[in-house]
Amino acid sequence: MTVFTDYLWFNTKKKQEFVRITDEVAAIVKKSGIQDGMVLVSAMHITAAVYVNDWESGLIEDFQVWLEKLAPSKLPYKHHQTGEDNADAHLKRTIMGHQIIVPITGSALDLGPWEQVFYAEFDGQRRKRVVVKVMGA
Amino acid sequence: MTVFTDYLWFNTKKKQEFVRITDEVAAIVKKSGIQDGMVLVSAMHITAAVYVNDWESGLIEDFQVWLEKLAPSKLPYKHHQTGEDNADAHLKRTIMGHQIIVPITGSALDLGPWEQVFYAEFDGQRRKRVVVKVMGA
Amino acid sequence: MTVFTDYLWFNTKKKQEFVRITDEVAAIVKKSGIQDGMVLVSAMHITAAVYVNDWESGLIEDFQVWLEKLAPSKLPYKHHQTGEDNADAHLKRTIMGHQIIVPITGSALDLGPWEQVFYAEFDGQRRKRVVVKVMGA
Repeated sequence: MTVFTDYLWFNTKKKQEFVRITDEVAAIVKKSGIQDGMVLVSAMHITAAVYVNDWESGLIEDFQVWLEKLAPSKLPYKHHQTGEDNADAHLKRTIMGHQIIVPITGSALDLGPWEQVFYAEFDGQRRKRVVVKVMGA
Repeated sequence: MTVFTDYLWFNTKKKQEFVRITDEVAAIVKKSGIQDGMVLVSAMHITAAVYVNDWESGLIEDFQVWLEKLAPSKLPYKHHQTGEDNADAHLKRTIMGHQIIVPITGSALDLGPWEQVFYAEFDGQRRKRVVVKVMGA
Repeated sequence: MTVFTDYLWFNTKKKQEFVRITDEVAAIVKKSGIQDGMVLVSAMHITAAVYVNDWESGLIEDFQVWLEKLAPSKLPYKHHQTGEDNADAHLKRTIMGHQIIVPITGSALDLGPWEQVFYAEFDGQRRKRVVVKVMGA
Protein backbone atom coordinates (compact mmCIF):
# COMPACT_ATOMS: atom_id res chain seq x y z
CA MET A 1 0.00 0.00 0.00
CA THR A 2 1.13 3.53 -0.78
CA VAL A 3 0.00 6.78 0.85
CA PHE A 4 0.84 10.05 -0.88
CA THR A 5 0.06 13.58 0.32
CA ASP A 6 0.04 16.93 -1.41
CA TYR A 7 -1.61 20.32 -0.93
CA LEU A 8 -3.29 22.81 -3.27
CA TRP A 9 -3.09 26.52 -2.45
CA PHE A 10 -5.70 29.14 -3.32
CA ASN A 11 -5.87 32.90 -3.04
CA THR A 12 -9.00 33.97 -4.90
CA LYS A 13 -9.45 37.49 -6.29
CA LYS A 14 -13.10 37.61 -5.26
CA LYS A 15 -14.63 36.86 -1.88
CA GLN A 16 -16.72 34.10 -3.45
CA GLU A 17 -15.28 32.02 -6.26
CA PHE A 18 -15.76 28.50 -7.64
CA VAL A 19 -12.58 26.96 -9.10
CA ARG A 20 -12.43 23.71 -11.10
CA ILE A 21 -9.63 21.50 -9.72
CA THR A 22 -10.19 18.15 -11.48
CA ASP A 23 -6.91 18.41 -13.42
CA GLU A 24 -4.87 19.38 -10.36
CA VAL A 25 -6.24 16.38 -8.43
CA ALA A 26 -5.56 14.06 -11.38
CA ALA A 27 -1.98 15.35 -11.59
CA ILE A 28 -1.38 14.54 -7.91
CA VAL A 29 -2.79 11.03 -8.40
CA LYS A 30 -0.46 10.53 -11.36
CA LYS A 31 2.50 11.75 -9.31
CA SER A 32 1.58 9.27 -6.54
CA GLY A 33 1.95 6.32 -8.89
CA ILE A 34 -1.14 4.74 -7.33
CA GLN A 35 -3.13 2.65 -9.81
CA ASP A 36 -6.08 1.53 -7.72
CA GLY A 37 -7.44 3.25 -4.62
CA MET A 38 -8.99 6.50 -3.44
CA VAL A 39 -8.05 10.16 -3.23
CA LEU A 40 -9.40 12.42 -0.49
CA VAL A 41 -9.71 16.11 -1.42
CA SER A 42 -10.54 18.17 1.67
CA ALA A 43 -10.71 21.92 2.38
CA MET A 44 -8.50 22.84 5.36
CA HIS A 45 -10.34 26.12 5.99
CA ILE A 46 -13.85 26.22 7.39
CA THR A 47 -15.34 28.76 4.99
CA ALA A 48 -14.49 26.79 1.84
CA ALA A 49 -15.99 23.70 0.22
CA VAL A 50 -14.88 20.91 -2.10
CA TYR A 51 -17.67 19.35 -4.14
CA VAL A 52 -18.40 17.40 -7.33
CA ASN A 53 -20.86 18.74 -9.89
CA ASP A 54 -21.25 20.24 -13.36
CA TRP A 55 -18.75 22.49 -15.16
CA GLU A 56 -21.42 24.83 -16.52
CA SER A 57 -21.33 28.52 -15.71
CA GLY A 58 -25.13 28.90 -15.53
CA LEU A 59 -25.42 26.15 -12.94
CA ILE A 60 -22.56 27.64 -10.93
CA GLU A 61 -24.51 30.92 -10.81
CA ASP A 62 -27.62 28.97 -9.79
CA PHE A 63 -25.63 27.44 -6.92
CA GLN A 64 -24.50 30.87 -5.77
CA VAL A 65 -28.00 32.43 -5.88
CA TRP A 66 -29.42 29.37 -4.10
CA LEU A 67 -26.81 29.39 -1.34
CA GLU A 68 -27.41 33.10 -0.71
CA LYS A 69 -31.12 32.31 -0.32
CA LEU A 70 -30.55 29.39 2.07
CA ALA A 71 -27.77 31.08 4.07
CA PRO A 72 -28.01 34.87 3.61
CA SER A 73 -24.95 37.04 4.23
CA LYS A 74 -26.73 40.00 5.83
CA LEU A 75 -28.21 38.45 8.98
CA PRO A 76 -27.20 39.45 12.55
CA TYR A 77 -25.31 36.20 13.26
CA LYS A 78 -24.01 35.57 16.81
CA HIS A 79 -20.62 34.68 15.30
CA HIS A 80 -20.21 38.32 14.24
CA GLN A 81 -20.02 39.41 17.89
CA THR A 82 -16.46 38.02 17.81
CA GLY A 83 -15.53 40.59 15.14
CA GLU A 84 -15.99 38.15 12.25
CA ASP A 85 -18.37 38.88 9.36
CA ASN A 86 -18.37 35.50 7.61
CA ALA A 87 -20.92 33.31 9.42
CA ASP A 88 -22.83 32.79 6.17
CA ALA A 89 -19.64 31.42 4.58
CA HIS A 90 -19.52 28.69 7.27
CA LEU A 91 -23.15 27.78 6.52
CA LYS A 92 -22.78 27.87 2.74
CA ARG A 93 -19.76 25.57 2.82
CA THR A 94 -21.70 23.16 5.03
CA ILE A 95 -24.40 22.76 2.37
CA MET A 96 -21.81 22.15 -0.37
CA GLY A 97 -19.69 19.80 1.76
CA HIS A 98 -16.04 20.30 2.68
CA GLN A 99 -14.52 17.15 1.20
CA ILE A 100 -14.92 14.46 -1.38
CA ILE A 101 -13.30 11.16 -2.26
CA VAL A 102 -12.63 10.21 -5.84
CA PRO A 103 -12.04 6.51 -6.61
CA ILE A 104 -8.94 5.72 -8.65
CA THR A 105 -9.16 2.92 -11.21
CA GLY A 106 -6.48 2.17 -13.82
CA SER A 107 -4.30 5.07 -12.55
CA ALA A 108 -7.07 7.59 -13.38
CA LEU A 109 -9.86 9.38 -11.52
CA ASP A 110 -12.90 7.09 -11.88
CA LEU A 111 -15.42 9.86 -12.60
CA GLY A 112 -18.74 9.82 -14.44
CA PRO A 113 -19.14 11.69 -17.76
CA TRP A 114 -20.09 15.05 -16.20
CA GLU A 115 -18.38 14.86 -12.82
CA GLN A 116 -15.91 17.66 -12.12
CA VAL A 117 -14.19 18.50 -8.84
CA PHE A 118 -14.58 22.07 -7.58
CA TYR A 119 -13.11 24.22 -4.83
CA ALA A 120 -15.75 26.69 -3.61
CA GLU A 121 -14.44 29.71 -1.76
CA PHE A 122 -16.91 31.73 0.34
CA ASP A 123 -14.47 34.00 2.19
CA GLY A 124 -11.51 34.44 -0.09
CA GLN A 125 -8.86 37.02 -0.93
CA ARG A 126 -6.36 35.26 1.34
CA ARG A 127 -4.20 32.11 1.18
CA LYS A 128 -6.01 28.86 1.87
CA ARG A 129 -5.20 25.21 1.48
CA VAL A 130 -6.75 21.93 0.35
CA VAL A 131 -5.20 18.63 1.40
CA VAL A 132 -5.03 15.83 -1.18
CA LYS A 133 -4.34 12.38 0.28
CA VAL A 134 -4.01 9.42 -2.08
CA MET A 135 -4.19 5.83 -0.78
CA GLY A 136 -4.00 2.59 -2.68
CA ALA A 137 -1.84 0.11 -4.51
CA MET B 1 -4.10 -4.61 1.12
CA THR B 2 -6.82 -5.36 -1.40
CA VAL B 3 -8.74 -2.91 -3.58
CA PHE B 4 -11.91 -4.14 -5.28
CA THR B 5 -14.17 -2.20 -7.64
CA ASP B 6 -17.69 -2.79 -8.89
CA TYR B 7 -20.55 -0.72 -10.27
CA LEU B 8 -24.30 -0.63 -9.69
CA TRP B 9 -26.59 0.36 -12.55
CA PHE B 10 -29.93 2.14 -12.22
CA ASN B 11 -32.69 3.08 -14.63
CA THR B 12 -35.59 4.31 -12.52
CA LYS B 13 -39.17 4.29 -13.79
CA LYS B 14 -39.94 7.67 -12.21
CA LYS B 15 -37.99 10.90 -12.53
CA GLN B 16 -37.47 10.95 -8.75
CA GLU B 17 -36.99 7.68 -6.89
CA PHE B 18 -35.25 6.54 -3.70
CA VAL B 19 -33.84 3.00 -3.88
CA ARG B 20 -32.42 1.03 -0.92
CA ILE B 21 -29.04 -0.47 -1.87
CA THR B 22 -27.68 -1.76 1.45
CA ASP B 23 -27.85 -5.40 0.32
CA GLU B 24 -26.22 -4.71 -3.04
CA VAL B 25 -23.31 -2.93 -1.31
CA ALA B 26 -22.96 -5.76 1.24
CA ALA B 27 -22.86 -8.32 -1.60
CA ILE B 28 -19.99 -6.45 -3.29
CA VAL B 29 -18.09 -6.31 0.02
CA LYS B 30 -18.57 -10.06 0.42
CA LYS B 31 -17.35 -10.66 -3.12
CA SER B 32 -14.23 -8.56 -2.40
CA GLY B 33 -13.17 -10.86 0.42
CA ILE B 34 -12.14 -7.84 2.49
CA GLN B 35 -12.62 -8.38 6.21
CA ASP B 36 -11.60 -5.01 7.63
CA GLY B 37 -11.63 -1.69 5.82
CA MET B 38 -13.97 0.75 4.09
CA VAL B 39 -16.30 0.82 1.10
CA LEU B 40 -16.94 3.99 -0.89
CA VAL B 41 -20.35 4.21 -2.57
CA SER B 42 -20.47 7.19 -4.92
CA ALA B 43 -22.97 8.41 -7.54
CA MET B 44 -21.26 8.90 -10.92
CA HIS B 45 -23.99 11.22 -12.22
CA ILE B 46 -24.47 14.72 -10.90
CA THR B 47 -28.24 14.64 -10.42
CA ALA B 48 -28.22 11.61 -8.10
CA ALA B 49 -27.29 11.12 -4.44
CA VAL B 50 -26.10 8.33 -2.19
CA TYR B 51 -27.01 8.75 1.46
CA VAL B 52 -27.55 6.86 4.74
CA ASN B 53 -30.83 7.18 6.61
CA ASP B 54 -34.03 5.42 7.64
CA TRP B 55 -35.89 2.78 5.61
CA GLU B 56 -39.32 4.21 6.42
CA SER B 57 -41.64 5.28 3.63
CA GLY B 58 -43.10 8.24 5.58
CA LEU B 59 -39.67 9.72 6.19
CA ILE B 60 -38.72 9.20 2.54
CA GLU B 61 -41.80 11.24 1.56
CA ASP B 62 -40.78 13.88 4.13
CA PHE B 63 -37.34 14.07 2.48
CA GLN B 64 -38.94 14.56 -0.94
CA VAL B 65 -41.35 17.29 0.21
CA TRP B 66 -38.54 19.02 2.09
CA LEU B 67 -36.11 18.94 -0.86
CA GLU B 68 -38.77 20.40 -3.15
CA LYS B 69 -39.21 23.24 -0.65
CA LEU B 70 -35.46 23.93 -0.33
CA ALA B 71 -34.69 23.49 -4.05
CA PRO B 72 -37.89 23.98 -6.07
CA SER B 73 -38.18 22.52 -9.55
CA LYS B 74 -40.13 25.35 -11.19
CA LEU B 75 -37.70 28.28 -10.90
CA PRO B 76 -36.12 30.04 -13.91
CA TYR B 77 -32.62 28.61 -13.34
CA LYS B 78 -29.74 29.90 -15.48
CA HIS B 79 -28.75 26.29 -16.18
CA HIS B 80 -31.96 25.90 -18.19
CA GLN B 81 -30.69 28.35 -20.82
CA THR B 82 -28.47 25.45 -22.01
CA GLY B 83 -31.61 23.44 -22.84
CA GLU B 84 -31.52 21.46 -19.57
CA ASP B 85 -34.48 21.40 -17.20
CA ASN B 86 -32.90 19.70 -14.19
CA ALA B 87 -31.08 22.39 -12.19
CA ASP B 88 -33.17 21.56 -9.11
CA ALA B 89 -31.93 17.95 -9.33
CA HIS B 90 -28.32 19.19 -9.04
CA LEU B 91 -29.27 21.21 -5.93
CA LYS B 92 -31.32 18.44 -4.31
CA ARG B 93 -28.52 15.92 -4.70
CA THR B 94 -26.11 18.41 -3.14
CA ILE B 95 -28.20 18.55 0.05
CA MET B 96 -28.40 14.74 0.27
CA GLY B 97 -24.72 14.21 -0.57
CA HIS B 98 -23.36 12.24 -3.50
CA GLN B 99 -21.28 9.63 -1.70
CA ILE B 100 -20.82 7.77 1.54
CA ILE B 101 -18.26 5.46 3.10
CA VAL B 102 -19.33 2.44 5.10
CA PRO B 103 -16.75 0.92 7.46
CA ILE B 104 -16.26 -2.85 7.14
CA THR B 105 -15.63 -4.84 10.33
CA GLY B 106 -15.61 -8.64 10.51
CA SER B 107 -16.38 -8.91 6.75
CA ALA B 108 -19.69 -7.04 7.21
CA LEU B 109 -20.95 -3.47 6.82
CA ASP B 110 -20.43 -1.87 10.25
CA LEU B 111 -23.78 -0.05 10.35
CA GLY B 112 -25.88 1.16 13.29
CA PRO B 113 -29.29 -0.42 13.98
CA TRP B 114 -31.28 1.84 11.64
CA GLU B 115 -28.68 2.80 9.06
CA GLN B 116 -29.59 1.91 5.48
CA VAL B 117 -27.82 2.95 2.29
CA PHE B 118 -29.95 4.67 -0.37
CA TYR B 119 -29.55 5.75 -3.97
CA ALA B 120 -31.63 8.89 -4.57
CA GLU B 121 -32.45 9.66 -8.18
CA PHE B 122 -33.62 13.20 -9.05
CA ASP B 123 -33.49 13.01 -12.86
CA GLY B 124 -34.10 9.40 -13.73
CA GLN B 125 -35.63 7.33 -16.51
CA ARG B 126 -32.21 6.72 -18.01
CA ARG B 127 -29.19 4.52 -17.25
CA LYS B 128 -26.94 5.76 -14.47
CA ARG B 129 -24.11 4.30 -12.43
CA VAL B 130 -22.77 4.16 -8.89
CA VAL B 131 -19.16 3.18 -8.25
CA VAL B 132 -18.43 0.91 -5.29
CA LYS B 133 -14.76 0.79 -4.26
CA VAL B 134 -13.73 -1.50 -1.40
CA MET B 135 -10.35 -1.09 0.33
CA GLY B 136 -8.88 -3.02 3.22
CA ALA B 137 -7.30 -6.23 4.40
CA MET C 1 -1.33 -1.63 5.90
CA THR C 2 -3.07 -1.42 9.25
CA VAL C 3 -6.80 -1.06 9.95
CA PHE C 4 -7.87 -0.08 13.45
CA THR C 5 -11.43 0.35 14.74
CA ASP C 6 -12.86 1.99 17.82
CA TYR C 7 -16.17 3.51 18.89
CA LEU C 8 -17.16 6.67 20.77
CA TRP C 9 -20.30 6.62 22.94
CA PHE C 10 -22.57 9.57 23.63
CA ASN C 11 -25.55 10.15 25.89
CA THR C 12 -26.29 13.87 25.77
CA LYS C 13 -28.18 15.65 28.54
CA LYS C 14 -30.12 17.79 26.08
CA LYS C 15 -32.10 16.69 23.05
CA GLN C 16 -29.86 18.81 20.82
CA GLU C 17 -26.17 19.15 21.66
CA PHE C 18 -22.94 19.81 19.75
CA VAL C 19 -19.87 18.08 21.23
CA ARG C 20 -16.26 18.69 20.17
CA ILE C 21 -14.51 15.34 19.59
CA THR C 22 -11.21 16.32 17.93
CA ASP C 23 -9.15 15.10 20.90
CA GLU C 24 -10.99 11.79 21.16
CA VAL C 25 -10.40 11.11 17.45
CA ALA C 26 -6.72 12.08 17.76
CA ALA C 27 -6.33 9.70 20.73
CA ILE C 28 -7.72 6.79 18.70
CA VAL C 29 -5.36 7.60 15.82
CA LYS C 30 -2.44 7.61 18.29
CA LYS C 31 -3.55 4.25 19.72
CA SER C 32 -3.70 2.81 16.17
CA GLY C 33 -0.02 3.51 15.59
CA ILE C 34 -0.81 4.63 12.04
CA GLN C 35 1.50 7.37 10.79
CA ASP C 36 0.10 8.11 7.36
CA GLY C 37 -3.45 7.47 6.19
CA MET C 38 -7.05 8.42 6.89
CA VAL C 39 -9.55 8.17 9.72
CA LEU C 40 -13.28 7.85 9.09
CA VAL C 41 -15.53 9.26 11.82
CA SER C 42 -19.15 8.30 11.19
CA ALA C 43 -22.37 8.59 13.21
CA MET C 44 -24.07 5.18 13.58
CA HIS C 45 -27.47 6.71 14.38
CA ILE C 46 -29.53 8.51 11.79
CA THR C 47 -30.48 11.58 13.85
CA ALA C 48 -26.88 12.59 14.59
CA ALA C 49 -24.16 14.25 12.52
CA VAL C 50 -20.37 14.41 12.45
CA TYR C 51 -18.95 17.55 10.89
CA VAL C 52 -15.88 19.82 10.77
CA ASN C 53 -16.18 23.50 11.57
CA ASP C 54 -15.34 26.25 14.08
CA TRP C 55 -15.08 25.84 17.87
CA GLU C 56 -16.87 29.12 18.59
CA SER C 57 -20.03 29.13 20.68
CA GLY C 58 -21.68 31.97 18.72
CA LEU C 59 -21.30 30.11 15.45
CA ILE C 60 -22.64 26.92 17.02
CA GLU C 61 -25.76 28.86 18.06
CA ASP C 62 -25.98 30.24 14.51
CA PHE C 63 -25.90 26.67 13.17
CA GLN C 64 -28.72 25.65 15.50
CA VAL C 65 -30.96 28.63 14.62
CA TRP C 66 -30.27 28.09 10.93
CA LEU C 67 -31.03 24.36 11.02
CA GLU C 68 -34.33 25.03 12.82
CA LYS C 69 -35.22 27.46 10.03
CA LEU C 70 -34.31 25.04 7.22
CA ALA C 71 -35.79 21.95 8.92
CA PRO C 72 -38.38 23.05 11.51
CA SER C 73 -39.29 20.70 14.34
CA LYS C 74 -43.02 21.49 14.52
CA LEU C 75 -44.25 20.38 11.09
CA PRO C 76 -46.75 17.53 10.53
CA TYR C 77 -44.18 15.13 9.08
CA LYS C 78 -45.37 11.81 7.62
CA HIS C 79 -42.69 10.04 9.67
CA HIS C 80 -44.61 11.00 12.82
CA GLN C 81 -47.50 8.72 11.84
CA THR C 82 -45.24 5.84 12.96
CA GLY C 83 -45.22 7.24 16.50
CA GLU C 84 -41.87 9.02 16.07
CA ASP C 85 -41.49 12.77 16.67
CA ASN C 86 -37.97 13.33 15.31
CA ALA C 87 -38.31 13.75 11.53
CA ASP C 88 -36.65 17.17 11.75
CA ALA C 89 -33.62 15.52 13.41
CA HIS C 90 -33.19 13.28 10.33
CA LEU C 91 -33.30 16.36 8.06
CA LYS C 92 -30.98 18.48 10.23
CA ARG C 93 -28.36 15.77 10.34
CA THR C 94 -28.55 15.44 6.55
CA ILE C 95 -27.58 19.10 6.13
CA MET C 96 -24.64 18.78 8.53
CA GLY C 97 -23.49 15.43 7.11
CA HIS C 98 -23.14 12.18 9.00
CA GLN C 99 -19.47 11.44 8.51
CA ILE C 100 -16.08 12.93 7.79
CA ILE C 101 -12.62 11.70 6.95
CA VAL C 102 -9.57 13.30 8.49
CA PRO C 103 -6.23 12.73 6.75
CA ILE C 104 -3.37 11.54 8.99
CA THR C 105 0.12 12.88 8.30
CA GLY C 106 3.10 12.36 10.61
CA SER C 107 0.96 10.38 13.12
CA ALA C 108 -1.31 13.42 13.65
CA LEU C 109 -4.66 14.66 12.33
CA ASP C 110 -3.79 16.82 9.30
CA LEU C 111 -6.24 19.64 10.09
CA GLY C 112 -6.22 23.31 9.11
CA PRO C 113 -5.77 26.01 11.79
CA TRP C 114 -9.45 26.29 12.72
CA GLU C 115 -10.75 22.83 11.86
CA GLN C 116 -12.38 20.98 14.74
CA VAL C 117 -14.37 17.75 14.62
CA PHE C 118 -17.86 17.83 16.12
CA TYR C 119 -20.57 15.34 17.01
CA ALA C 120 -23.99 16.98 16.56
CA GLU C 121 -26.87 15.31 18.36
CA PHE C 122 -30.42 16.17 17.25
CA ASP C 123 -32.37 13.53 19.20
CA GLY C 124 -30.34 12.81 22.29
CA GLN C 125 -30.84 11.74 25.88
CA ARG C 126 -30.05 8.13 24.98
CA ARG C 127 -26.95 6.09 24.20
CA LYS C 128 -25.58 6.48 20.69
CA ARG C 129 -22.39 5.53 18.92
CA VAL C 130 -19.84 6.87 16.45
CA VAL C 131 -17.53 4.48 14.61
CA VAL C 132 -13.91 5.53 14.13
CA LYS C 133 -12.01 3.51 11.51
CA VAL C 134 -8.32 4.26 10.91
CA MET C 135 -6.54 3.00 7.79
CA GLY C 136 -2.97 3.52 6.70
CA ALA C 137 0.67 2.62 7.18
